[in-house]
Amino acid sequence: MNYKMMGRLIAQILMLEALFMVPSLLIAVMDGTKRAALAFGVSIVGVFLFAGTLYLFCRRANRTLYTGEGMVTVSISWILMSLFGCLPFWISGEIPLFIDAFFEIVSGFTTTGASVVANVEALSRAVLYWRSFSHWLGGMGVLVFLLAIAPSAGKSGGSTLHLLRAESPGPTVSKLVPRMKQTALILYLLYIVLTLLNFLFLLIGGMPLFEAVCTAFATAGTGGFGIKADSIAGYSPYIQNVCTVFMLLFGVNFSCYHLIVLRQFKAVLKDEELRLYIGIVLGSIGLIVWNLRDYYATFGETLRHAAFQVSSIITTTGFATADFNLWPAFSKAILLCLMVIGACAGSTGGGIKCVRVLLLLKSLRRNIRLTLHPQKVEIIRKDGQMVDERVVANTGMYLAAYVIIVLVSFLILSLDDYSTTTHFSAVIACFNNIGPGFDSVGPASHYGGYSVLSKLVLSADMLAGRLEIFPVLALFARSTWKNA
Amino acid sequence: MNYKMMGRLIAQILMLEALFMVPSLLIAVMDGTKRAALAFGVSIVGVFLFAGTLYLFCRRANRTLYTGEGMVTVSISWILMSLFGCLPFWISGEIPLFIDAFFEIVSGFTTTGASVVANVEALSRAVLYWRSFSHWLGGMGVLVFLLAIAPSAGKSGGSTLHLLRAESPGPTVSKLVPRMKQTALILYLLYIVLTLLNFLFLLIGGMPLFEAVCTAFATAGTGGFGIKADSIAGYSPYIQNVCTVFMLLFGVNFSCYHLIVLRQFKAVLKDEELRLYIGIVLGSIGLIVWNLRDYYATFGETLRHAAFQVSSIITTTGFATADFNLWPAFSKAILLCLMVIGACAGSTGGGIKCVRVLLLLKSLRRNIRLTLHPQKVEIIRKDGQMVDERVVANTGMYLAAYVIIVLVSFLILSLDDYSTTTHFSAVIACFNNIGPGFDSVGPASHYGGYSVLSKLVLSADMLAGRLEIFPVLALFARSTWKNA
Repeated sequence: MNYKMMGRLIAQILMLEALFMVPSLLIAVMDGTKRAALAFGVSIVGVFLFAGTLYLFCRRANRTLYTGEGMVTVSISWILMSLFGCLPFWISGEIPLFIDAFFEIVSGFTTTGASVVANVEALSRAVLYWRSFSHWLGGMGVLVFLLAIAPSAGKSGGSTLHLLRAESPGPTVSKLVPRMKQTALILYLLYIVLTLLNFLFLLIGGMPLFEAVCTAFATAGTGGFGIKADSIAGYSPYIQNVCTVFMLLFGVNFSCYHLIVLRQFKAVLKDEELRLYIGIVLGSIGLIVWNLRDYYATFGETLRHAAFQVSSIITTTGFATADFNLWPAFSKAILLCLMVIGACAGSTGGGIKCVRVLLLLKSLRRNIRLTLHPQKVEIIRKDGQMVDERVVANTGMYLAAYVIIVLVSFLILSLDDYSTTTHFSAVIACFNNIGPGFDSVGPASHYGGYSVLSKLVLSADMLAGRLEIFPVLALFARSTWKNA
Repeated sequence: MNYKMMGRLIAQILMLEALFMVPSLLIAVMDGTKRAALAFGVSIVGVFLFAGTLYLFCRRANRTLYTGEGMVTVSISWILMSLFGCLPFWISGEIPLFIDAFFEIVSGFTTTGASVVANVEALSRAVLYWRSFSHWLGGMGVLVFLLAIAPSAGKSGGSTLHLLRAESPGPTVSKLVPRMKQTALILYLLYIVLTLLNFLFLLIGGMPLFEAVCTAFATAGTGGFGIKADSIAGYSPYIQNVCTVFMLLFGVNFSCYHLIVLRQFKAVLKDEELRLYIGIVLGSIGLIVWNLRDYYATFGETLRHAAFQVSSIITTTGFATADFNLWPAFSKAILLCLMVIGACAGSTGGGIKCVRVLLLLKSLRRNIRLTLHPQKVEIIRKDGQMVDERVVANTGMYLAAYVIIVLVSFLILSLDDYSTTTHFSAVIACFNNIGPGFDSVGPASHYGGYSVLSKLVLSADMLAGRLEIFPVLALFARSTWKNA
């Protein structure tokens, strides 16, 4: 194990985190919320001292990282980022229990948006900003950010690919350009431009500046932390529709946007994952509108709520304009399926990802054919290109790990005294980085009532969901640590 | 497609079915339940006429069947068996709606035990007997029975292996002896001996003859149709314990019993699937006993109920001595996991099967290692022997098909007006061939309230679960019918 290089990377990541806390400190000072200012000040100094010391020890490191080391580095850095990132919540006393503060920031960085806070409107603006910003940072990934700005990243292309792979969602990482550093840079540029656009559209709709910033952050990261008790329900239909559109946009594979910038429109239209994604969205909206036909006053209102909730759930954002907990069972069942499917790979959304669903369906079809004609040999194609058999096998294993983690988490959560639906939907909502579930963890409720053990399990689920399982499982694999 | 050979096999199976209805006719005549006697008489004649005509047309057939043809034959024969097998229920008027009668017999043949009958004690003895016998026949498979007795089965070993594979549960079929006919014969002999033992132990406990016969049938097939409104709850603790033990025994791979007969005890002890099965059973009983510690009067009572329900659920029988719907969430969560896992391959139980869980865990472990060290090559071993990579891939695909079928069925069921837990557990309970679910389909309730569409979906799930998905999916694959 190249501990020095791992330590060096982690130190750099934490220093970035400290830097990113500064705006919150400024807001706290501006607002005169003293406890929040103190909390952010102490946290920044603490993180910086820890990260600086670590950096000094690990400065001179061999730059080569193997896959396993890269994965473990990413997982550990996310855990440390969360442990330090929750300090402001806890020190300011705005979230009094440490486990709650930890759950909240994990939920933030993993872009889940599940909250333990009963009344968000009581939080200071500095804390609200940090909460929403954690979505934005976690959405594209802090390591990808580091790769984009670090001067050394261009040199050792091989090792940084592992890192990108561990932090980016999807079964394969599409290298946009041959150099990793530039890929990371392009991703963040696209991300920033889209976020700015979202922000502007919200401002045009008359949303106050601070609220527009926070909402844009939470939308861009497909996170879902609201700054109002009723999420997005209190805003105008225009703003709700802006959110619907931008949530969907942030659920698209960013390589599509890169292709659009390069004017390769044909390639975008041919993208099978994008087609599946759009198909599922439109189909779900249609079915829910039909199911809710006698539910709202006008067709327009029904369509608006259906489209908003579908976008919010399939992109795993978790904003709400309606308490879908009160919708009929069929609409709830559709939403539950969307929770599992999730957005596109290479987006900021979570879930199993449309491309995995696509691969599973394709290999399932192949499997039926092979069972019927065992002598046949057949390859799987996506977008006209052959899919590596290892990617196909990995997708199957991803589903297996997914099912096992869901069942084990559900089992542990069931020790708490809620309904089966609550437990099951809590696991699905956290593991897929959505946020609200059903029943006692529905959109009108929060996760504060769960026990410490359950909150730890759900935090682990959120991390495993965001990092796509294997980097987190690698932490527990003996073979990771054997040749240390 | 070799339609003639397919027709010939189906005709033979249906003739067997007609033959198996004769005892019910005799019971009806003895009891003087005229409508039941008439119903069975008409059904027997009807089935025999249909099957006879079919046989005459298909008599001279080329005996070779390819895998696809074998699968389709098995699926079609099960559907036809159910369509004809439900006639007595419907004609006698004891189950007035045809869809209900169909659901009930599918539930019988697939050893599910989900019932639409609100008051089983109102049914005539002839109908009760046919209901319970359908479990026994479906448990080991009517085609396996045909192979065991048909004089021609010995000749064309290749084609009968496909049939055995399509009807026998598990990812691989263990040929006990080189000749298929003898394998089928050994399986049925073991099955009959174990059923007789079960029957005797029940008689010793003072159970009346008719009840002991029916209970032994339902236990042997791991079906679960009761003949009392309160299932097994009204019987003595001794009888409940006999059921517990025999349910567990019928959930074991029958090749283990063959090994015991051959005195190869070491091989039995080394069987990894058996170890996993026993481990899961003991672990689950322990956890539930702990969870229910303040629930029943004595430790003995708690242990008895926990052991009974665990055995009943993991073997997918579905008998009940307690309404586990009223148990705390943790115990219910354990039972839900057991529903999914199921019994051993090569037993009469359903579910994903312990051996598949074992293979999934092993290939998951390998996958983590391969992600960490992509250059490595690793094979998967079970019981010391290498597992064919195609079996590993198939297991992954099985899980994928499983998840997709569960989600789609859940979606369609949700059109009905029950709770999410009801819908979800109904799908799980039918697809895994268990019987009772939670909430409105719990052990104290029944499936009669579902719509016709839902009953059809659940019937398809039961068949897909019993025949292990692919033979049923093959019915819908274009490539099955293309070279017809």
